[in-house]
Amino acid sequence: MNKNSSNIMALAPNTSNKRETVCIFGTGDFGRALGHKLIQSGYPVVYGSRSTQISNLIPKDAEVLGHAEAAQKAAIIIIAIQRQHYNFLTPLAEVLRGKVLVDISNNLKLNQYPESNAEYLAQLLPGSKVVKAFNTVSAWALQSGTLDASRQVFVCGDDVEAKQVVMDIVRALGLTPLDKGSLLAAQEIENYPLQLFPMWKFPIFLSFGLGAFFFIYCLVLDVIYTYIYENNNFSFFIAITIPNRVFPVMALILFALVYLPGIFAAIIQLYRGTKYRRFPDWLDKWMLCRKQLGLIALAFASLHVVFTLVTPLRAFASWRTSKRIVSQALNNQTEPLDHTNAWLSDSYLALGILGYFLFVLLGITSLPSVSNNVNWREFRFVQSKLGYLALILCTAHTMIYGGKWFLSPSAYKWYLPDIYILSLIVPCAILVVKFVLIFPCVDKPLTRIRQGWERNPKYSE
Amino acid sequence: MNKNSSNIMALAPNTSNKRETVCIFGTGDFGRALGHKLIQSGYPVVYGSRSTQISNLIPKDAEVLGHAEAAQKAAIIIIAIQRQHYNFLTPLAEVLRGKVLVDISNNLKLNQYPESNAEYLAQLLPGSKVVKAFNTVSAWALQSGTLDASRQVFVCGDDVEAKQVVMDIVRALGLTPLDKGSLLAAQEIENYPLQLFPMWKFPIFLSFGLGAFFFIYCLVLDVIYTYIYENNNFSFFIAITIPNRVFPVMALILFALVYLPGIFAAIIQLYRGTKYRRFPDWLDKWMLCRKQLGLIALAFASLHVVFTLVTPLRAFASWRTSKRIVSQALNNQTEPLDHTNAWLSDSYLALGILGYFLFVLLGITSLPSVSNNVNWREFRFVQSKLGYLALILCTAHTMIYGGKWFLSPSAYKWYLPDIYILSLIVPCAILVVKFVLIFPCVDKPLTRIRQGWERNPKYSE
Amino acid sequence: MNKNSSNIMALAPNTSNKRETVCIFGTGDFGRALGHKLIQSGYPVVYGSRSTQISNLIPKDAEVLGHAEAAQKAAIIIIAIQRQHYNFLTPLAEVLRGKVLVDISNNLKLNQYPESNAEYLAQLLPGSKVVKAFNTVSAWALQSGTLDASRQVFVCGDDVEAKQVVMDIVRALGLTPLDKGSLLAAQEIENYPLQLFPMWKFPIFLSFGLGAFFFIYCLVLDVIYTYIYENNNFSFFIAITIPNRVFPVMALILFALVYLPGIFAAIIQLYRGTKYRRFPDWLDKWMLCRKQLGLIALAFASLHVVFTLVTPLRAFASWRTSKRIVSQALNNQTEPLDHTNAWLSDSYLALGILGYFLFVLLGITSLPSVSNNVNWREFRFVQSKLGYLALILCTAHTMIYGGKWFLSPSAYKWYLPDIYILSLIVPCAILVVKFVLIFPCVDKPLTRIRQGWERNPKYSE
Repeated sequence: MNKNSSNIMALAPNTSNKRETVCIFGTGDFGRALGHKLIQSGYPVVYGSRSTQISNLIPKDAEVLGHAEAAQKAAIIIIAIQRQHYNFLTPLAEVLRGKVLVDISNNLKLNQYPESNAEYLAQLLPGSKVVKAFNTVSAWALQSGTLDASRQVFVCGDDVEAKQVVMDIVRALGLTPLDKGSLLAAQEIENYPLQLFPMWKFPIFLSFGLGAFFFIYCLVLDVIYTYIYENNNFSFFIAITIPNRVFPVMALILFALVYLPGIFAAIIQLYRGTKYRRFPDWLDKWMLCRKQLGLIALAFASLHVVFTLVTPLRAFASWRTSKRIVSQALNNQTEPLDHTNAWLSDSYLALGILGYFLFVLLGITSLPSVSNNVNWREFRFVQSKLGYLALILCTAHTMIYGGKWFLSPSAYKWYLPDIYILSLIVPCAILVVKFVLIFPCVDKPLTRIRQGWERNPKYSE
Repeated sequence: MNKNSSNIMALAPNTSNKRETVCIFGTGDFGRALGHKLIQSGYPVVYGSRSTQISNLIPKDAEVLGHAEAAQKAAIIIIAIQRQHYNFLTPLAEVLRGKVLVDISNNLKLNQYPESNAEYLAQLLPGSKVVKAFNTVSAWALQSGTLDASRQVFVCGDDVEAKQVVMDIVRALGLTPLDKGSLLAAQEIENYPLQLFPMWKFPIFLSFGLGAFFFIYCLVLDVIYTYIYENNNFSFFIAITIPNRVFPVMALILFALVYLPGIFAAIIQLYRGTKYRRFPDWLDKWMLCRKQLGLIALAFASLHVVFTLVTPLRAFASWRTSKRIVSQALNNQTEPLDHTNAWLSDSYLALGILGYFLFVLLGITSLPSVSNNVNWREFRFVQSKLGYLALILCTAHTMIYGGKWFLSPSAYKWYLPDIYILSLIVPCAILVVKFVLIFPCVDKPLTRIRQGWERNPKYSE
Repeated sequence: MNKNSSNIMALAPNTSNKRETVCIFGTGDFGRALGHKLIQSGYPVVYGSRSTQISNLIPKDAEVLGHAEAAQKAAIIIIAIQRQHYNFLTPLAEVLRGKVLVDISNNLKLNQYPESNAEYLAQLLPGSKVVKAFNTVSAWALQSGTLDASRQVFVCGDDVEAKQVVMDIVRALGLTPLDKGSLLAAQEIENYPLQLFPMWKFPIFLSFGLGAFFFIYCLVLDVIYTYIYENNNFSFFIAITIPNRVFPVMALILFALVYLPGIFAAIIQLYRGTKYRRFPDWLDKWMLCRKQLGLIALAFASLHVVFTLVTPLRAFASWRTSKRIVSQALNNQTEPLDHTNAWLSDSYLALGILGYFLFVLLGITSLPSVSNNVNWREFRFVQSKLGYLALILCTAHTMIYGGKWFLSPSAYKWYLPDIYILSLIVPCAILVVKFVLIFPCVDKPLTRIRQGWERNPKYSE
């Protein structure tokens, strides 16, 4: 047996079913929660603390010693103290030499310090093997055992064996370690738990803004206009009718906004004649939140579907049907079937359903577990080909919705167009430009540019 | 090159495209199935067997030798025999020294033996490197190549290199190895394939029990009562009407039961003034099956949605509509639009749809691949904030369903309340208590307790 | 510190926040894209190129040197040149000795060469450590930073440490490495990006073929027949009515085809008396695409559900209702409730909904992240027990759809049966045979055969 594998043996839990002692520096909340959990999982735990007075908060089976004594009892030391107090560890450098130090600290703000806490610790104690871990787990979740959330623990560190040891502890606690590479990843790991859907912020604000605008627009045209000119109180339209006008409009616009940056990118590249210059910042950011935009569009589309399907259950719809049929009966006549109308109504519904169906397919493909099982070519096929097909179907659905009245001037109240006409502007523009872009005379240079070709290659020197 | 990396080279498949010989002890079903698969994947296979008489069940290209001879030919030995016969391996200890033994055994019952089979094997042969693997794969699936199920193979073992070698074989067979850490995980791995949805049992029994109770309750009130007092035979209500009364009630109650344990936990912690005492066992178990309760509630809610949407397609609905309209026509009148009714009907539907929409969002977030991409803060936001919003919307939806008749005494048949009134008890109680809990004077101490503060800290000496 | 771990230190990024230099051979598109990304991630990059004339396509911060000089500057060399030019590397063998060579090449066709590019490279330079990686990532995606697709990078190689180093680089670029084992996996990794849903091809062609047939069949019976004999123009049936006849038929047939190969396999095994003979090729292939068949069936079933639910919104439906009610009103009568009809209509709808509900459950279980969290026993329970229950419900739903006219001769236009009758043939046959197969006298020998028992074991001496 060579030295190295005996070293592994020393660190890894051995076959005699006994776990290695773990030392925890700091008796704060997370330190205690972790200690409890470690003891439950069969690890002997020793606390390193300034005062060895034992609070009954500390797990009963744990020993409490001074820092240096505690550190000597274990090969792994979990540093459950705040970054500000890290420098008190410097005098212990000799005791901690060669040991695995697990940095579990979190910050209060994103990028609070120039370097990550773990890297700072590694600089203070260059002789120790620093591993970042556990910072993404909540003490409260650990304590109450209710880890229905992510069980993933990000682990990073420069020493492969130290990382293995920490990952084994993570697994023993019933969590799933995820190796994030070297200690350089610590910054990212420390920022992770501070985020609240950073990629979703812009798309959500955008949809709230747009949604509010369209809601008020419809309120004015459908409720206030009707009240003033037709003296009808349709205030109950606020609950279903108006939302069901706004939702499809939002869905179509946001769906179109998913494909718009791709169009811009193509035009920019064609104009510049190269792909080796960065896009403007706004375009970069836009491209990065396309998935989120698409999913919000899908949410609106789904709401539109259900709001539409409940139509026959509404008291208003049932009243309107009665009124229509009773008036026919009183006039002693049945109207014949209007074939144009039947065609329009059926194709309108069929296009909408098929478009929504493809849209849901796109949504399913963007589930992480599905998109990970799909290669780049397949992903492009679904997101680009099927996506454009869905956009075409949804645009056609909206156009036929207008039916015979589409663009007829009598439909304009207060000279304002209905919102479904507004919603058609962006998708129609995209479809027209895309149609131009797939012409060979435009597509060929674009493809070559994307394969690395340049129109005006300039050699420096 | 140092000794260690040459050791790795010896174990790992080398570049000359030739796989290492694998030895299999035991010619039972799984041993044969694994042998077939290994040969297909390019591994030379040698069987160790008591009788070297070759059955044609054994793959043609495999050699069959005595145990000792076979073991000498390979660095990896797969032990495809039952735990009861492990002790016959003890005489072979010398031959097996330093070799990788793969324990693939399964038990018939959960926790059948005090220690796992793999640990027992490691105790019998302390000189060998025992790795647990393959026990979660079915021989039948391996044989027929139809592994549509999980392709994950849990692997654990104390020797890191031995584990690597086994994981390479797992990958070569087209399966996905999952490192579960040291051999201590073997118990869990051996229990895994014996489970049949253990977390789902209680929620499913609970919903069957509750569902049956409510079904009979409705049957009595809607069918039997109507038959006795109104002489109407509405027995066909059993197919759609009654289920569609029971489903939403079940959905609301089960959804409320997801949030009830959190309320109990908060009250217990406020009362005790500490978080460092374990909750009663029933509360712990309840908290652990909240996700399952929520998903069953979502299933009931989904059924309720579809059962409601098909209403206009029912022969009964179409008959009722005809009857109503014809009677209006015969009376030569059209009833005016009832605005209160229109408001109630529309807001009832809108609240239900929005509540269901948020509920589906919660369901999607609980998909493993989604919840793994979400940090603790985001998960809490969705499950707690959005969850309570969904509960409020669904409770309001149910209240407005009653409409003008809500709590009116004339609606009580046989002095029994309608089940939707029963279903409101738990969610309303939860919402009231939660409303109290978010008052700062209650919320502040609770937050401090959850951060580790204690009302009566007792220092033991 | 022993030699080995110091070796790890040399390769792994050290704590001083400085990344190792990476050398890239070849200044083609992918080489440049990767270089850009590496520089962004903090790696010093040096290009090895025949001409050291610096094109401005090459990232500004990168150095460009001759191959040998560039290679000497780095421990990792990314080979971004095509396989045809690999042999020019042979003279550099001495410089490349002991270094990590990353093969990122892709082929144009599946299995273009007898051995994978990475294995070919390893044969040319036996002294270097070849790792296959990055070939699944698109240069365009890397460049534009829009990696919404899979972030997985498959990595394989025979040297564990070299693989670790490459995986660290992969992680640093924001991608997720997936260890696929030894270099033997390179062939599979190189084929991966060339595939376009290979498992879906047959099921999709099959459903297009079947779907077209049924569409034309319905067109003839519902539109052309009606036009000729009843002189009614129902051409608008093409949009909704006919699709909504074809979709459920397709769903039921494809769903049945998921269970048919299992029935065949059982019969073949019973006949042969052994499981140790391969199934015919067509059966093997059929079994491997069952999941895809089931998901397409689910898609058709979902379309059927939505197409059915929009029925009351159709102009045709509203016209038909008016006509029926007006004629009743004019005849001064209300028809009484037909109880048989109410029962048939309600149970038809309820069975369909429950069948669809179980079908969706099956679909959710087949999501990769869900099926990975389910053991073999649970998967079998869902796919087999619940699957058959869903099949029974859907078959019953279809039978009751026919209602009183089921198999009545008057329903046959041009002596052709309605397509829902055709769709019942396969599922009914499967359910009958399955019913026979679960009889103990048939089930017991089958179970024993699947556990490895043979009816006529022949020992070859």
